[in-house]
Amino acid sequence: MLPRLTQAHAPLTREVSAVNELGDVDTVSIPAERALTVYVDKRELVTLMTLGAHPELLVLGFLRNQRLVASVDEVDSITVDWDVGAAAVKTRQGISNIEARTAKRVVTTGCGQGSVFGDLMAEVDQIKLPPATLTQAQLYGIVNAIRLKETTYKSSGSVHGCALFRGEELLVFVEDVGRHNALDTIAGWMWMNPQVGGTGADKVFYTTGRLTSEMVIKSAQMGVPMVVSRSGITQMGLDVAQQLGLCAIGRATNKRFLCYSAAHRLKLQTELLA
Amino acid sequence: MLPRLTQAHAPLTREVSAVNELGDVDTVSIPAERALTVYVDKRELVTLMTLGAHPELLVLGFLRNQRLVASVDEVDSITVDWDVGAAAVKTRQGISNIEARTAKRVVTTGCGQGSVFGDLMAEVDQIKLPPATLTQAQLYGIVNAIRLKETTYKSSGSVHGCALFRGEELLVFVEDVGRHNALDTIAGWMWMNPQVGGTGADKVFYTTGRLTSEMVIKSAQMGVPMVVSRSGITQMGLDVAQQLGLCAIGRATNKRFLCYSAAHRLKLQTELLA
Repeated sequence: MLPRLTQAHAPLTREVSAVNELGDVDTVSIPAERALTVYVDKRELVTLMTLGAHPELLVLGFLRNQRLVASVDEVDSITVDWDVGAAAVKTRQGISNIEARTAKRVVTTGCGQGSVFGDLMAEVDQIKLPPATLTQAQLYGIVNAIRLKETTYKSSGSVHGCALFRGEELLVFVEDVGRHNALDTIAGWMWMNPQVGGTGADKVFYTTGRLTSEMVIKSAQMGVPMVVSRSGITQMGLDVAQQLGLCAIGRATNKRFLCYSAAHRLKLQTELLA
Repeated sequence: MLPRLTQAHAPLTREVSAVNELGDVDTVSIPAERALTVYVDKRELVTLMTLGAHPELLVLGFLRNQRLVASVDEVDSITVDWDVGAAAVKTRQGISNIEARTAKRVVTTGCGQGSVFGDLMAEVDQIKLPPATLTQAQLYGIVNAIRLKETTYKSSGSVHGCALFRGEELLVFVEDVGRHNALDTIAGWMWMNPQVGGTGADKVFYTTGRLTSEMVIKSAQMGVPMVVSRSGITQMGLDVAQQLGLCAIGRATNKRFLCYSAAHRLKLQTELLA
């Protein structure tokens, strides 16, 4: 039983005037970041800064990734109203002990969602990732699919992109002011599309942002054993990826990349470079 | 009376092995992100993820920018011990009502410090910025000074840089996994160097990161009326900059830039392009 979601829309970019180095006034496009305050059963939980492409999926994925709801059927509805910048979440049974569970604050490296409630790291030991692999050809397919996307980034910059792939098949692509928002939105999408998103085992996450520990942990929590990034990895991101046996591939542009961990999951096909 | 600070050091990068697209093992440098839990008068406040170049200044600037201490002389000492990943802050008088003042959570766009306690926006109306200006030649001097820096970014990527300038004179340059950490560290530096850092009126902030609302607000809170970025601006960043009359210059690379707000503060010298 899937939650009922509104489909609130808002423009992702806005045209503004700026003075350039020649003194001319240029019209440029900037990302239309806005504040979304999340209420769970009428209790204020958090304010997210978001581009707002899919606010309901963002809120659902945020609750999922913060481990505040364990299953999608715990959520009855999510109603977003941009006029007041609010998302009202109605749960079926309430969230037990929500006060205590959101008390611990960790200010993280993440863009766009720096705060992690509770102790995500404590759960890492319990995660067993499935034995999936990816070929070098599929990896190149992923990088190319991203390259072909017409994006807010291309028109206005200043956003992060995140995508979910099945092999090299692009399932969903989300941009937001922060890469964590984008990843949370994908987590929400997976819950709302259980036929495809019900398992992470055959999936690959792509992000334009850095592979930090939280990105790696969130991917692992969704059961996705491979992450690909245009950027690099941080030490804690690498530590967690190695601990989990998660394959972290960074600096992926054109034909180049670096596989930082679980290299056995990547089936090299160096003949592709010949 | 300035606080006593330890000078905890930790390596900023770490060498790791990664498999490249040819199947060769490369040795690459990655940023050595680590967790620093901040205790204020023995009470746990927050955990910051940081590169750890100047952890004491980061903590001091964090307390300043979160408005938890109003003046540097409220802090008696900050002791950082990387062996346990802890920063112990001792205040002279305690922080009154700290529980309530850290209760409201806003998950922001920021990299590296997404969480803002309290309602920063509520203070924006009270800020009056000084009538400073910058010449186009000084702006080019700033961009060039950053270009010449030998940086962790250049060796390992995945970090944000932030700098404080007086005109085109580089006063301090900080890198961290998140741009907010870098900016907070500069705020701490200003408090510890009151002869130079006592006023923001003649200063310019530079950041490699996006000009989000929090970056603009933090700059304004420190009395710095000009910000320069290699990246773009978000809508809320622009809204706040316009409201404050803060000069926000983005996309600054080589000779190009876009001045998004308070263009009267930028003294164009288009003859420099001739």
